[in-house]
Amino acid sequence: MYKLVLMRHGESQWNLENRFTGWTDVDLTETGRLQAKQAGELLKENGYEFDLAFASVLKRAIRTLWIALDSMDAMHTPIGLSWRLNERHYGALQGLNKAETAEKFGDEQVLVWRRAYAIAPDPVAIDDPRNPSFDPRYARVPAEELPRTECLKDTVARVVPFWEDSIAPAIRAGRRVLVTAHGNSLRALIKHLDSISETDIVHLNIPTGQPLVYELDENLRPIRHYYLGDQEEIQAAMQAVANQGKAQ
Amino acid sequence: MYKLVLMRHGESQWNLENRFTGWTDVDLTETGRLQAKQAGELLKENGYEFDLAFASVLKRAIRTLWIALDSMDAMHTPIGLSWRLNERHYGALQGLNKAETAEKFGDEQVLVWRRAYAIAPDPVAIDDPRNPSFDPRYARVPAEELPRTECLKDTVARVVPFWEDSIAPAIRAGRRVLVTAHGNSLRALIKHLDSISETDIVHLNIPTGQPLVYELDENLRPIRHYYLGDQEEIQAAMQAVANQGKAQ
Repeated sequence: MYKLVLMRHGESQWNLENRFTGWTDVDLTETGRLQAKQAGELLKENGYEFDLAFASVLKRAIRTLWIALDSMDAMHTPIGLSWRLNERHYGALQGLNKAETAEKFGDEQVLVWRRAYAIAPDPVAIDDPRNPSFDPRYARVPAEELPRTECLKDTVARVVPFWEDSIAPAIRAGRRVLVTAHGNSLRALIKHLDSISETDIVHLNIPTGQPLVYELDENLRPIRHYYLGDQEEIQAAMQAVANQGKAQ
Repeated sequence: MYKLVLMRHGESQWNLENRFTGWTDVDLTETGRLQAKQAGELLKENGYEFDLAFASVLKRAIRTLWIALDSMDAMHTPIGLSWRLNERHYGALQGLNKAETAEKFGDEQVLVWRRAYAIAPDPVAIDDPRNPSFDPRYARVPAEELPRTECLKDTVARVVPFWEDSIAPAIRAGRRVLVTAHGNSLRALIKHLDSISETDIVHLNIPTGQPLVYELDENLRPIRHYYLGDQEEIQAAMQAVANQGKAQ
């Protein structure tokens, strides 16, 4: 049996401001850094060790991983970074406040944008600075693969190849793996792992900075999964994520 | 023409205490963290960007790199870690104070241990906790390659293959590379790059936390090299390294 640990980054500045973030490279808040530290301590207390870690190329995921590894006294853990673990690209919504957007367009439209499986917000324009083509960190990604907006279906389509080509082979080779990523890239991965339907995935909400353990059988099929840490706190955090898109 | 940047980690706790460190996983001091931050700022001010970074598996090098990349706003830079970039293993000297050792054995003997090319201190015993075989981070390194002591010649013998197999191919592929390592693993690399003789390498001293730029021709032969930053400060720092093994 294998164990895989997934972790959403700690609270970011735009989580705090309740803005659509996507590929914007926003940093962690002090709370987010503390969450990352506590996550590392929790993993260490529970005897977790990792041979390999993965993260997106966004600093809120990387810093979460760095802080967690540091607090586990495991800074020497090799880290693989990939744009394929990035948050869903939120297109023209990136930068907007979720509650204000809900006031303007209605809760229902925002829920569609946030959670409808195959409906993407408007893309950013080609000459928009939010177009990833302008960011040198994506220089080696083929232009046709770089999104200017995504629905969750699009995110699944670029996360699953990374699972198949990089994460799954490492687990099969006996490496103990930690993946630090984002609300929607982790939802995409979990949808694939647990074969969740397009309608059911809308109800899955992942709290920030909480290690989520997946136990996998020899074919990497999930046996069970659970969050480490205080279960009531985690339930409350999941509900808070679900409520973010509502007008306040 | 290619540019390669080498950097010794910032001041560590045992640099401060003037102790032989080797593979002991000692952390940076506050001064060391500040040096790393300033190095990153200096690189950024001078327009340096990196596609790839390498470090040893020791936290003083990794933290130096993390801090420097953070201050360059380049946390997304891929990092390759290798034990082959570790500091020279100082054998039974690890943990001893350099000046006290010099008082006990004489300046000359300590200079031999520190700088003689082919004379290693006594090895740590097989059952000594300082034997790297007990550290899980080296679990995948073949046992016969793990040292229990090293002279600089031994360090050269394990650094050069990493240059040939990992660093040089990346540079030839057009990647802009930063290597963050240690006084002796960098001396080993520089000996190889600059074809320095076994007798002349004794006089090469590398200050902590100062970016050292190598300009290389199309065959990766050095054209020239220079430290970024304040040249007088660097000269003083190099002299201080040279003096560490003297009785005080």
